[in-house]
Amino acid sequence: MPDTLPADSVGLVSPATLHVDKPLQLDCGRTLNNYHLIYETYGTLNQEKSNAILICHALSGDHHAAGYHSMQDRKPGWWDSAIGPGKPIDTNHFFVVCPNNLGGCKGSTGPNTINPETGRLYGPDFPIVTVADWVRSQAVLADHLGIQQWAAVVGGSLGGMQALQWAISLPDRLRHVLIIAAAPKLSAQNIAFNEVARTAIKSDPDFHEGHYAEHNTIPAQGLGLARMLGHITYLSDEAMGQKFGRELRSGALQYGYDVEFQIESYLRYQSSSFVGRFDANTYLLMTKALDYFDPARDFNDDLTATVASIQARSLVISFTSDWRFSPLRSVEIVNAMIKAGKHVTYAEIEANQGHDAFLMPITRYMEIFGSYMKKIASEVPSA
Amino acid sequence: MPDTLPADSVGLVSPATLHVDKPLQLDCGRTLNNYHLIYETYGTLNQEKSNAILICHALSGDHHAAGYHSMQDRKPGWWDSAIGPGKPIDTNHFFVVCPNNLGGCKGSTGPNTINPETGRLYGPDFPIVTVADWVRSQAVLADHLGIQQWAAVVGGSLGGMQALQWAISLPDRLRHVLIIAAAPKLSAQNIAFNEVARTAIKSDPDFHEGHYAEHNTIPAQGLGLARMLGHITYLSDEAMGQKFGRELRSGALQYGYDVEFQIESYLRYQSSSFVGRFDANTYLLMTKALDYFDPARDFNDDLTATVASIQARSLVISFTSDWRFSPLRSVEIVNAMIKAGKHVTYAEIEANQGHDAFLMPITRYMEIFGSYMKKIASEVPSA
Repeated sequence: MPDTLPADSVGLVSPATLHVDKPLQLDCGRTLNNYHLIYETYGTLNQEKSNAILICHALSGDHHAAGYHSMQDRKPGWWDSAIGPGKPIDTNHFFVVCPNNLGGCKGSTGPNTINPETGRLYGPDFPIVTVADWVRSQAVLADHLGIQQWAAVVGGSLGGMQALQWAISLPDRLRHVLIIAAAPKLSAQNIAFNEVARTAIKSDPDFHEGHYAEHNTIPAQGLGLARMLGHITYLSDEAMGQKFGRELRSGALQYGYDVEFQIESYLRYQSSSFVGRFDANTYLLMTKALDYFDPARDFNDDLTATVASIQARSLVISFTSDWRFSPLRSVEIVNAMIKAGKHVTYAEIEANQGHDAFLMPITRYMEIFGSYMKKIASEVPSA
Repeated sequence: MPDTLPADSVGLVSPATLHVDKPLQLDCGRTLNNYHLIYETYGTLNQEKSNAILICHALSGDHHAAGYHSMQDRKPGWWDSAIGPGKPIDTNHFFVVCPNNLGGCKGSTGPNTINPETGRLYGPDFPIVTVADWVRSQAVLADHLGIQQWAAVVGGSLGGMQALQWAISLPDRLRHVLIIAAAPKLSAQNIAFNEVARTAIKSDPDFHEGHYAEHNTIPAQGLGLARMLGHITYLSDEAMGQKFGRELRSGALQYGYDVEFQIESYLRYQSSSFVGRFDANTYLLMTKALDYFDPARDFNDDLTATVASIQARSLVISFTSDWRFSPLRSVEIVNAMIKAGKHVTYAEIEANQGHDAFLMPITRYMEIFGSYMKKIASEVPSA
């Protein structure tokens, strides 16, 4: 789609794949004897291998965080607003790594890849993976790349939870952690929304207990519903109101059950475009990883004790209109870190875009994010 | 279920039915040539017929607002907390009328009743009805009962919208209006949630374009999903957290796709119990009535001009943790009334129960509600 690549783009990129034969023990008790991780990198690793940034993706994200795969791409990677030359995560200085998570559907081992032990798709038999499992697998990728210590681990939403888990589980392997629009665990309401989404998928007659691929179909209605619902929770009431208000699609009231308001039309479009590009089993798995995330569970629900192991310096960012993971949820993390005597910086960004704000180039957000990253850059030489 | 009826209960009640042969013109352009309304009454109408209170029900409500139908009933009517001897709507003083709305599924003409013109169920061919249509039909019931002017029209949520519409459309037929947990129109987010619920119902293969009764089935999955989602919006995040937190159903993590947390179990229970007692076509219709409600549409979106016709004195009540129709939405109504020079009292009740708070016997709420009703009682003799 771009006639020419923007000057602040990482440009044309292509993914790499790491095949791992060393077994990975999962929290659920099962083991992946071998697996592969697809990932992208931007920028150049310096000689000391000290300028590497790990990007962790959220529910529907993947390894394609920045740049374009071809000049025909309609859109760049999902966090292109933050990653590139001169952007907060400045690829003139940093070597950026973004893998697709295990259980994903964009190239890493997951439900839509072949189980080498059966020769058939994993489908619903792919094990439940947790945020801690992802961190373990990402550490294997770091080992492969020769990165002993990340300059920073960065993520938003479910990605921010991975970043937090990194800082807790492998404290000496990162110098900074950036936890954006996240929470230390889901609330009952968060879990409730996930359960509605899962129920929609699982009750779709085309779901076939997750074996839909063998029936040459996909649970399009259920996955579409899950996405519609997700979208409501990603946007603020205010943002929806400003974008769509109560605008009628046709100009005049129809008094029928077809689309009447623009917001309905928008949700249907989001739903159908998502169904073509995301896997239902992966959606189930990602929502479960969210539900299970609760690092304080191993510390008697004491978040201060949970973060006691952290060595990384932290930047925590929230957005005022985010009602999925509200600023108060970030403050829980911040307060625990302060109590534990950790080095933490917190910024609550005034933004009306809701949870999705973390993906947007909001001026104040980019300034604070960029300023923090510049400090990190000053600590390490570029390549 | 009650061994003895509580002293403050209206006791055993049974509904009456009004058959109407005078055609009702609907906003959608269609006409109901005849219809019936099922309703209940509590208390005694005084000689002057001046002590009558109209109760308008919300999305899933009906005409059974208080008391018991039999000693075997597990629960009393849906607003038993507010209606009865000595309660805010004191049946020692007032004559209370509560009809099931047109398009409902509990006895009034609606999708699950016979269309006299075809001899078959209306099903999905039942016309879309609006809040203004309901007010017109409720006025026919008032005429039948000889009630020229209600002492008050009272409702919460969608019921509050009917109360507001009464005050706007038929200003000389009510002396007071009580608008509780309502809004002057839905936001884009409100409409979005409704659209997800409708999509869930309509995409259920058992929906059969609304003709499920002819297929001897019901769209149980879709209707259940709609109810699960509704429940999330009726409760506050805080109330869900206090009630369920992240309690595990089985005590230990299962790492599977079955119910893991109590909140999931609760939603599934709510879903399945609702499916057995509510009609899917009615659910669609009620959500559409919500979407279409926007009395200011006829006044160039000027709410102040919209309420200019109101003669009734008003009490508007909201609840702090209600995020479906937040206090700010009630304030929109209040501000318009103040600008229009109307007599309005407003109370924002501190409550953590979310939207459902309007159905609960919260002390401060009952005090303010009861105190206002006592003032009304002082204006009219009891029977």
